[in-house]
Amino acid sequence: MASVTVWNEFIHEREDDAVAEVYPDGIHATIADALEDRGHDARTATLDEPEHGLTEAVLDDTDVLLWWGHAAHDEVEDEVVERVAERVHEGMGLLVLHSAHASKPFKRLLGTPCDLTWREDGERERCWVVDPGHPITDGLDDSLVIDEAEMYGEPFGVPEPDRLVFTSWFEGGEVFRSGCCYERGRGSIFYFRPGHETYPIYHRDDVQRVLDNAVRWAAPTEGADATAGNRNVEPRESL
Amino acid sequence: MASVTVWNEFIHEREDDAVAEVYPDGIHATIADALEDRGHDARTATLDEPEHGLTEAVLDDTDVLLWWGHAAHDEVEDEVVERVAERVHEGMGLLVLHSAHASKPFKRLLGTPCDLTWREDGERERCWVVDPGHPITDGLDDSLVIDEAEMYGEPFGVPEPDRLVFTSWFEGGEVFRSGCCYERGRGSIFYFRPGHETYPIYHRDDVQRVLDNAVRWAAPTEGADATAGNRNVEPRESL
Amino acid sequence: MASVTVWNEFIHEREDDAVAEVYPDGIHATIADALEDRGHDARTATLDEPEHGLTEAVLDDTDVLLWWGHAAHDEVEDEVVERVAERVHEGMGLLVLHSAHASKPFKRLLGTPCDLTWREDGERERCWVVDPGHPITDGLDDSLVIDEAEMYGEPFGVPEPDRLVFTSWFEGGEVFRSGCCYERGRGSIFYFRPGHETYPIYHRDDVQRVLDNAVRWAAPTEGADATAGNRNVEPRESL
Amino acid sequence: MASVTVWNEFIHEREDDAVAEVYPDGIHATIADALEDRGHDARTATLDEPEHGLTEAVLDDTDVLLWWGHAAHDEVEDEVVERVAERVHEGMGLLVLHSAHASKPFKRLLGTPCDLTWREDGERERCWVVDPGHPITDGLDDSLVIDEAEMYGEPFGVPEPDRLVFTSWFEGGEVFRSGCCYERGRGSIFYFRPGHETYPIYHRDDVQRVLDNAVRWAAPTEGADATAGNRNVEPRESL
Repeated sequence: MASVTVWNEFIHEREDDAVAEVYPDGIHATIADALEDRGHDARTATLDEPEHGLTEAVLDDTDVLLWWGHAAHDEVEDEVVERVAERVHEGMGLLVLHSAHASKPFKRLLGTPCDLTWREDGERERCWVVDPGHPITDGLDDSLVIDEAEMYGEPFGVPEPDRLVFTSWFEGGEVFRSGCCYERGRGSIFYFRPGHETYPIYHRDDVQRVLDNAVRWAAPTEGADATAGNRNVEPRESL
Repeated sequence: MASVTVWNEFIHEREDDAVAEVYPDGIHATIADALEDRGHDARTATLDEPEHGLTEAVLDDTDVLLWWGHAAHDEVEDEVVERVAERVHEGMGLLVLHSAHASKPFKRLLGTPCDLTWREDGERERCWVVDPGHPITDGLDDSLVIDEAEMYGEPFGVPEPDRLVFTSWFEGGEVFRSGCCYERGRGSIFYFRPGHETYPIYHRDDVQRVLDNAVRWAAPTEGADATAGNRNVEPRESL
Repeated sequence: MASVTVWNEFIHEREDDAVAEVYPDGIHATIADALEDRGHDARTATLDEPEHGLTEAVLDDTDVLLWWGHAAHDEVEDEVVERVAERVHEGMGLLVLHSAHASKPFKRLLGTPCDLTWREDGERERCWVVDPGHPITDGLDDSLVIDEAEMYGEPFGVPEPDRLVFTSWFEGGEVFRSGCCYERGRGSIFYFRPGHETYPIYHRDDVQRVLDNAVRWAAPTEGADATAGNRNVEPRESL
Repeated sequence: MASVTVWNEFIHEREDDAVAEVYPDGIHATIADALEDRGHDARTATLDEPEHGLTEAVLDDTDVLLWWGHAAHDEVEDEVVERVAERVHEGMGLLVLHSAHASKPFKRLLGTPCDLTWREDGERERCWVVDPGHPITDGLDDSLVIDEAEMYGEPFGVPEPDRLVFTSWFEGGEVFRSGCCYERGRGSIFYFRPGHETYPIYHRDDVQRVLDNAVRWAAPTEGADATAGNRNVEPRESL
């Protein structure tokens, strides 16, 4: 069981009736409920809260942060982005959802453009497990079949993943590395492509299972008592 | 808690008094006791047992196999090596200890010579944590200091580790990648350098902690219901 | 310009008229001619030659070996497989073509089953570049479109590639990691999926360009004067 | 032969006589001369030039950029840092030298703190080749022995290198991953630890050889005609 914070810019749901119908309390509420049901302790935070709801106190009490954004990436303050990045380096897990490929924290932590091609046409996605022994795939079939999805296509502008867990097939002819694991500092990062504001993807049991698995995978471990911090140190052996 | 089998060729301890003094019941017994004390269910197996004690029944009931060998790598039957490799591909964890860098299962699973340079001169080793957020380092300090150790030096003839956890410094001037993680099929493999038949390294609390952590890290997960097996399959989409 | 040996089991072309029509002198001849045209010095070798045409003298004079097999993987002698593996460890490049995913040298060098799912139904393949800065992609478009192809599907039972260059989309709904780079010892290995005995894929200019690029990428470099070889060594510093 | 730009903050050499004695025209001049001697076309740029000498025109004409900084990392303008990062993503190579581990471009591109421990005590460093088949090691012995060096120690706060080429041993008891390769976008990045402003390390033939090798390794390749750029695209297959 992990202490989880689900962050959402929470814009589409309040401005667009079609989105509000799918996620009446916001995508964050749906995901937080799903994680609570699976045994985690989940809170939410949104863009319009002070410090976007991501104060030092909140982050200090967060094992794993989930991030959903789409329309307002640029409105996230750089100071909060730095705070998130620092906490990841110290061990906090980060799950980056769908259109958050272009979010500031993800780009800050990976250092690359994280760009892709896209198409919104309600086409079929087959999200294949390519690493069936990875804990993020626990309990899944060989693929998630999503009948209506936005397409994301390669080349995905990210560093080679430390482990690639999912790769998607799209009806329109593209492929995409849909589940990418990264270790940065003491923190674990997982990018998961499936998800959208109008397609009810976060209501699916298999998608919720992936998020649950990913939270468990990304939760921090104790690790060693070793920090560098650009410290000047004494020799261990006589010079 | 994992179901563990500790394998030892068990030769030095019966032929060499100096070794028997350090490990009167064999290195395997010392390690199995330590893992039992830390909550695992540990059994042992040795070279001179039928099928080297690694029958299908034993391996089917093993979450993580630890392997210690030095003098008799060539006496391990290829059929047993294949059985071990297949079980690793299916998800069994494998911990490869010290001189087992040259064991058949390790070379079979990595596909490389796994060679190194060495020197037996009782010199100091400083085994540094280079990935302090890795679960195998839980509860450690920044390094393990071993006052009398055999030296292993680079270049270590292994594939680039999926994650490098430890790197050793030796008094005589060498370095070595002492903690190397690999994923192969559904199985996790960890090579750990510290250890020897005459230096009492496996009696150390920090070394036992590494083995405990590594067992937990390498224990299989459920994963996805996906196997390829060179199967002919029907299309999912109409052609 | 590299010294290249193209190995082919050379069975289908002599037993099956449909294959002979596409590759009258064998797949190896077509590929060797293409590499010669692109400036390499290419010879061929086949299964039925003494030592399968891969004598020590031939391998000593080979910068990069290409391997095509399908029907007779088991007829390749283990001694030759070991010789190939050793040469790769010493620096020889190895290009593994299509159905050679199940060849002995590839499985020997990677240590995994290398299995996959497959279907022979003449469907469309879109082989996407996912690493457009990789030299193996020099001069390519964003994808290779192959109108009639055999399908290979995930999970592909290989280690996580050191670099993943291509990922294929198939009309029937599958994806596959079609271009996988590995470093093993001093040698570079590239697995390339597109290719078949009846579809004229090796006659394509873009496929020949990939093979040319891959030969240049895999050709050995001088490297450092450092070998381990399980040697006992003197200390560099006083103990 | 590559078009190289050697960047130096060029502060120590003008403020400290001891440094000026070793590098009378600046570290950049010494390195640029060495690369010219080895066949490259090398220019220099420094902090106090307009746009730090790294205008768009200069970067557009640069295959590989070398970066040396120590005292004035914070004085580098963010706009120039972004320009460098973008050019790396587009294919420009980047060599990060010694204390530039804490430079803005390196931290921007890797996304991690890049911190370490250090000690300035003129101790011996043995910089071992751990990947003797890597082209950056061409023509080297098994290690570079540097009699007087600043110490850098683990844990080095960087992502796991795509390939680790060197690991250093220090007299005082530490180890360090001294040669780290990264691929980011289309660009190749190499961090190389040896070097300092008062020890004459960049005058050494073996160090110059590493830089020459690294320039050749990092020079851009043509690659594929594939860019994502968050573009909306038409389907390739009918929906």
